[in-house]
Parts: sequence; C-alpha cells; structure tokens
Amino acid sequence: MSESPPFTIVGAGLAGTLLACYLGRLGYRVELHERRPDPRHHNQDRGRSINLALSVRGLHALREVGLADEVLRSAILMRGRMIHGQAGDLTFQPYGKDDSEALYSVSRAGLNLLLVEAAARLPAVNLYFGQRCTGFDPGSNVLDFQDTGKIAAEIIVGADGAYSAIRAQMQRQEHFNYQQEYLTHGYKELTIPAGPNGAFQLEKHALHIWPRGSFMMIALPNQDGSFTCTLFWPLQGPNSFAALTAPDDIRRFFTQQFPDAVPLLPTLVEDFLHNPTGSLVTIRCRPWHQGGKAVLVGDACHAVVPFLGQGMNAAFEDCTVLTQCLQAHAPHWEAAFRDYEARRKPHLDVLADLCLENFIEMRDRVGSRWFVLKKQLAVALHRLLPRWYLPLYTMIEFTRIPYADALRRARWQDRIVRGVLIGSGLLLLGLLWWQLR
Amino acid sequence: MSESPPFTIVGAGLAGTLLACYLGRLGYRVELHERRPDPRHHNQDRGRSINLALSVRGLHALREVGLADEVLRSAILMRGRMIHGQAGDLTFQPYGKDDSEALYSVSRAGLNLLLVEAAARLPAVNLYFGQRCTGFDPGSNVLDFQDTGKIAAEIIVGADGAYSAIRAQMQRQEHFNYQQEYLTHGYKELTIPAGPNGAFQLEKHALHIWPRGSFMMIALPNQDGSFTCTLFWPLQGPNSFAALTAPDDIRRFFTQQFPDAVPLLPTLVEDFLHNPTGSLVTIRCRPWHQGGKAVLVGDACHAVVPFLGQGMNAAFEDCTVLTQCLQAHAPHWEAAFRDYEARRKPHLDVLADLCLENFIEMRDRVGSRWFVLKKQLAVALHRLLPRWYLPLYTMIEFTRIPYADALRRARWQDRIVRGVLIGSGLLLLGLLWWQLR
Repeated sequence: MSESPPFTIVGAGLAGTLLACYLGRLGYRVELHERRPDPRHHNQDRGRSINLALSVRGLHALREVGLADEVLRSAILMRGRMIHGQAGDLTFQPYGKDDSEALYSVSRAGLNLLLVEAAARLPAVNLYFGQRCTGFDPGSNVLDFQDTGKIAAEIIVGADGAYSAIRAQMQRQEHFNYQQEYLTHGYKELTIPAGPNGAFQLEKHALHIWPRGSFMMIALPNQDGSFTCTLFWPLQGPNSFAALTAPDDIRRFFTQQFPDAVPLLPTLVEDFLHNPTGSLVTIRCRPWHQGGKAVLVGDACHAVVPFLGQGMNAAFEDCTVLTQCLQAHAPHWEAAFRDYEARRKPHLDVLADLCLENFIEMRDRVGSRWFVLKKQLAVALHRLLPRWYLPLYTMIEFTRIPYADALRRARWQDRIVRGVLIGSGLLLLGLLWWQLR
Repeated sequence: MSESPPFTIVGAGLAGTLLACYLGRLGYRVELHERRPDPRHHNQDRGRSINLALSVRGLHALREVGLADEVLRSAILMRGRMIHGQAGDLTFQPYGKDDSEALYSVSRAGLNLLLVEAAARLPAVNLYFGQRCTGFDPGSNVLDFQDTGKIAAEIIVGADGAYSAIRAQMQRQEHFNYQQEYLTHGYKELTIPAGPNGAFQLEKHALHIWPRGSFMMIALPNQDGSFTCTLFWPLQGPNSFAALTAPDDIRRFFTQQFPDAVPLLPTLVEDFLHNPTGSLVTIRCRPWHQGGKAVLVGDACHAVVPFLGQGMNAAFEDCTVLTQCLQAHAPHWEAAFRDYEARRKPHLDVLADLCLENFIEMRDRVGSRWFVLKKQLAVALHRLLPRWYLPLYTMIEFTRIPYADALRRARWQDRIVRGVLIGSGLLLLGLLWWQLR
C-alpha cells in the first residue's frame, strides 16, 4: 500500500494527530505539518493546564488506534456534576446509572503529546513542526507555508482548527456555505492549585459548576491535584470582562458570586488580569471537501461551543468515520469525502445547536428544582428501562448514536413519556369518578 | 451644514444612489464611488432587461426623496399572481383587496439611471464612476481603489452589494458574525418579446408563475411589451442546469413543463445556452458598522433570496431608517449606526427566513386548492376587517410594519382565527345536539 497517495495533514492538534495514527496504521503515507514547535522538545501550554472532557465517542476512536488504556491511565473519572450554590451549598447530580456513564478529565497538552508520540512511532508517518500553512493552490494542490516555502500535496487534510487556512482557501469556491457566529460571552481560565501533598481541594470525581443564571463558572480536575476553572461571562456591557478591571472589583465580584471558590483561588486577581479572555465561536460550512483533493476534519469544518464537551469527541469521531469512508471507497477519494460529509454534516449541525442550548441549561437550569426533578425522572426511567429509555445527554456523552438520531429519539421518548403520564392521569381520574359515583 | 463630515458611499447601485439622494437633500456632503461606468453615458445591462417588484416600503422611500411619481410613470402595475398550470390553464390570484395593494414591475437599469441622475442634480453630491473599491484601512479610513489609488474618507457607507469589499474588511474585526448560504437552486433569465405593435403576449398586469413543485418559472412585464422570465432550477444533479445542455433536451424540457410559454420564447435555446446561470445567496452579518467610521446598507449586510421581491424594498427602507438615525443622533455617528442596526437587524433576519420559505410557497403551494382556499379566506377576512386582519404577505408588501412585527402579528391573527373557527364549530355541534335531543 506504500504507493497509495500520501495524505498531507495540516495541523498536528488532537484531530490531526489522531487521523495520522488511523491512516498510518493502515499503511497510508502521511505527512503531518504543524505551525507550533515540537511538543516532544518544548513544554507548550504549560502555563495553562487546560483540560477536556473525554467521553465515549472519543474513547472509541482512541481504542481503535490502541491508545485508550494509555490515555485513561492519566485521566480523572468525573461521575457527575457538583453544583455550587451561591451560599456555598453543594448538590451532586450523577451523569448516569453507574461508572460506565461518566466523563474523563484529560489534559489537552498531555493527550496531544501522547498522540504526537504515537503518530511518530508509525513508519508511514512523517512529522514537521514550526511550519505555518497559509493556504494552498486549488489547481495544483501545492501548499504554501510561511518561511518554509511550498510543498506539493496529493490529498490535503485540513485539521487546522476553527481559523483553518485550508478552509479559508476552500471558501473561495463558488457556492461555499459558511457561518461563523460568536457568543456575546467569552471565557477566562483560573487555577485552583492542589492542597498540601497534592490533595484535591474540591471533590475530585466531579465536574464542578457554579450556575448563576446569565453566566457560570466551571472547574475540571487535573492529575496533579489542581483544578482549572473557567468563567463564562459577557465580553461587553456593565457586567463583563471589559468592565471588570480593578483588583478590588474583581475580588468583590468573586466573593459575591463564588464565595466558596475564593479561598481556593490564591492568585485570582493576577490570573484574572493576566490570563487572556477567550472567545466562543460556532462555525458551520459546506462542502467539507474540494473534489478528491482536500478535506476538512474537526474544528476546521464544525467548531462548536464547549458546553457539551463534545468538540474533541466529535473531531475524533470525524477521524473514525473518515477512515471508514476512505477504506470503503479507496482509491475513489472524492466519493470517500462525499460519503464522509454525508455521514457527518447533518449530525454536526445538530450538535452545534445542542451545544448552544446546553449553555443555558448549565448556567441556569441545573440550579432549579424542576430541572433536578426532571433529571431524576429521566435517570429513574433509564435505570428501569435501560435499553429503551436513553436521556439525550446520555446518548450524546455515553453512546455513539449519531447526534441527529439521538435528538430524534429523545423527542420521541419525551412524547411517549408525556402521553403515558397524561393517559395515567386520565385513567386515575376515571377510576376516582367511578369510585365516587 | 456644509462642514458636516462627508459620507463616502461605495456602490452606486439602487441603495447607494437612493442614500445619496437622502443625504444630499439634507445638505450632507456625499462622495459616491462606483466600479461600473457611468450609466448616463453607457447603456449598461441593456441585453438583460431585468425587472424588480417595487412595493410600499420602496415607494415610501422614493416618495421621501421626491421620486415616486417619476418612477411610477414607467412602472407596470401587477394586481396579482397569474398561475400557469402544466396544461396551460390559468388562474388569477389577486394580491389584495384593490389596486392600493399591488406590486409594480420596474426596470432595474431604468430605476438606477433615474436615481443616478437625481443624485447628480444635488449640489452636495459628487459621483465617480469606473472606480472599483477593494477595501479600506480601518485605522485611517483610507479606501483602496483598483487602478485609481487611495482616497481618505470620514464616514464610509458600504452599499456595494452581496460581495461587498467594505464588509469583507469589516469581517476581519474580532467577533464579527457572518453567514453566507447558497441555495442549491440557481436561476436563468429568458425573454418573451413583445408581440406585434408592442402587444403584451401574456396578461400585462400580473406576475406570472409556473409552479412545478420542486422548481418554478416566473415572468414580470416590461414597459416595451416584453416579459423577463426567470427559471429557478437546481444547479446540479440529474435535472439541473448542469445536466441540461443539448438543444433538443432544452426544447423537450420546456415543452413538457411550460407548454404555453414555449411558443412565446422564440430564442429559448440560444437564451438558455448563452445567458449566465445566477446563484442565490442569503447573507447575514453583525455588526453592520465599525464604530462611527463605516456602516453597511442593503445587500452588503443582508442579501436575501428574491422570492418576496423585498431585496430592493428592504434596501430602500435601510436608507429611510439610516437617515432618520443620522438626523436623530448627529454628530454622534456611532450612536446613529448602533441605533440603525438595532432598528433593522432583527427585522432583516426575519425577512431572510421568510424569503426562503416563500420559495416553497411560490414553486409548490400556490398551485394547490388548499392554498387558494386559505388565501381566499384571508382576503375575505381582510376585506371584512381591513384594519384588524392583515395577511402576512399583505403586511410585507403593502405596509411598512417592520418584518418581525409583521410575523408576530400574523401568528397571533392565525391563532385567533383558528380559535374562533374551533369555537364556532363546537357551538354549532352544541346547538345541533340541543336541537336533536
């Protein structure tokens, strides 16, 4: 298979390196170009120990390339949500019926390094770092790199993220549909360091949420005992990142809103003032490929907001499906890419909507009794009828049911449950009337 | 007021020239740059006598700048839709209760020329043709023109259409929301020439529709007795512009689908093969302005598909509202632009959706009995309660109720009508039961 055309992957982030592993293991020649320096020699992103929630779709992909066990060894099980009330009161909401339905907190930098190392071990894969791709010529498929010149590619894979240079070139096609939509909220990361002897200062096996209606803070555990907090807050306006710049105001805001977190955030003011404010964008486009010459994966074709923790998981699932399509159609690459887009695009459109909706659920509804009651009913139904009743969240996080199918099924289930409840109510009233008559 | 900062408008299409008239009449200095040659000296677009449907919003704007009567003198009243069945059968559906609720077919080139001449008559307005703007520097507000160099502007107005260079520059702002979405259908224009002595070969005072389910053809009358037909059809696939290229196939397709039109289309095959295939795009973006330095109007900020005939009307309404905002806030231009965006953007988002929905209505539903029955009920209700009941289509075409308000009101009306109908039905059943008891 070594005569098969080489895939030139642009971007050695999570999706690019996983795809290199998939393709390299099948014997396809892979050239992988990344603008950042080699993470095997440079400790990148060490200042910001960002973590991600790994769930079933991502785990399945890692298992297919033989890396799941290694990743899980340095991951932290999160069994549910720990809700922090404004008075510091705690409520735990389990994600599922048992530990098979749980998320894993993993370090982005650690996982990326592991994937780079795994890709580098494959003889068919070549890695190049410090190469910033600025576009490609759609006629010749020659890639342009800043500083390092031009490289001819047979098949280009754009795994270069939400601000993809490969997609930017494809956007110049006729009839390219494109949407970028920013939230008016941005985010900022803060650190809760480990306690004495690396002790976790909050419950270790939980994803912590401070829901505050129009905004929220979350925290995920890191391997070293620390937590990475993320505050999601408006970028502009009277209560916003733009308005909150004085140290006293920062301290006052946190003391009012997150009183139980403040004692655990010794570098709060410094972190708040010096850490960058991130923005949250949803990106949709179509087509995801240019003939049989170029194709997109991950954020490059479908960036989503992070409120379902599905960005990485969906990108990994892209790699799973793209590999299946390449195997099914080789050497008809255009047919493979068309099949891949048909199998992924409708589901990623649904995911984008669900992620936007889940922001409202996380920041607002998780704090309400009605939400807790409904969640408890859903979990009870799921326990009672585990094969028949699957809550939507369960299907997204803990199954590989395609997203749009999951949404359709959830709507049906809800309709049936509502029907049964109303029917039972009527039956009860009928019986009562019959008794009292 | 001659010291007021000059507005540099990019694009002397319909929106740009109308805005120049609005601003020039108020004494603002206006510099208007257009990439095409001067239409006063060049007969542009003569080959394609494209026409547009002018309705109340557009007419109101033209009246405000004193041009309505002149425009109406060369416009053709269209009282309703003439539906052409596949067997050549005709059905006329009036638009409203009388001629006050009708559309006007106007020539795009003729209207544009009239607006250029009106703007040129204003002493505060300077026009420059043959100047293609390629962007601007957001720091200095210096505009770049191909060939003709750089021009400093105080306030830039992007009236340069769906592929706006001004918007393209604004898109590089942080947090710029942008969407471009192409229909899978494209369009092609064909000509029904005038009959002997300039006779109209179809009903003159109608917008003609050949609804065919998944596609359609329409025709609007021109002043000279001809009609401009537009076929809306898929761009790709087995039945599409891409597939239909053989003269015999073209003739066969039209004879099958539009038998009554074929004898009126003597140059059908030549027109079909040589006229360009157009594409249909919806564009949304936010913000519509960059501080107090640049602002967008018309297609540049909200291109819609043509199925409600509102593209020009909405662009003209932009000019009306922008002028109001400039007068209310001058010299606080940023506040003016912010107000303008707040007053227009929500309504244009609704219009974009309604235009997409109306394609399905025009190509499919107008042919059904159920649709005709509902339309007749709506017209009857509107006649009976002219101040209370306004069909959605009536509000869009024949009032200046903002689009989103119109949609909200239509939904309420429908709910009430449905309630009244159900209530009457129940009452009738009750009376019947009481009689038969």
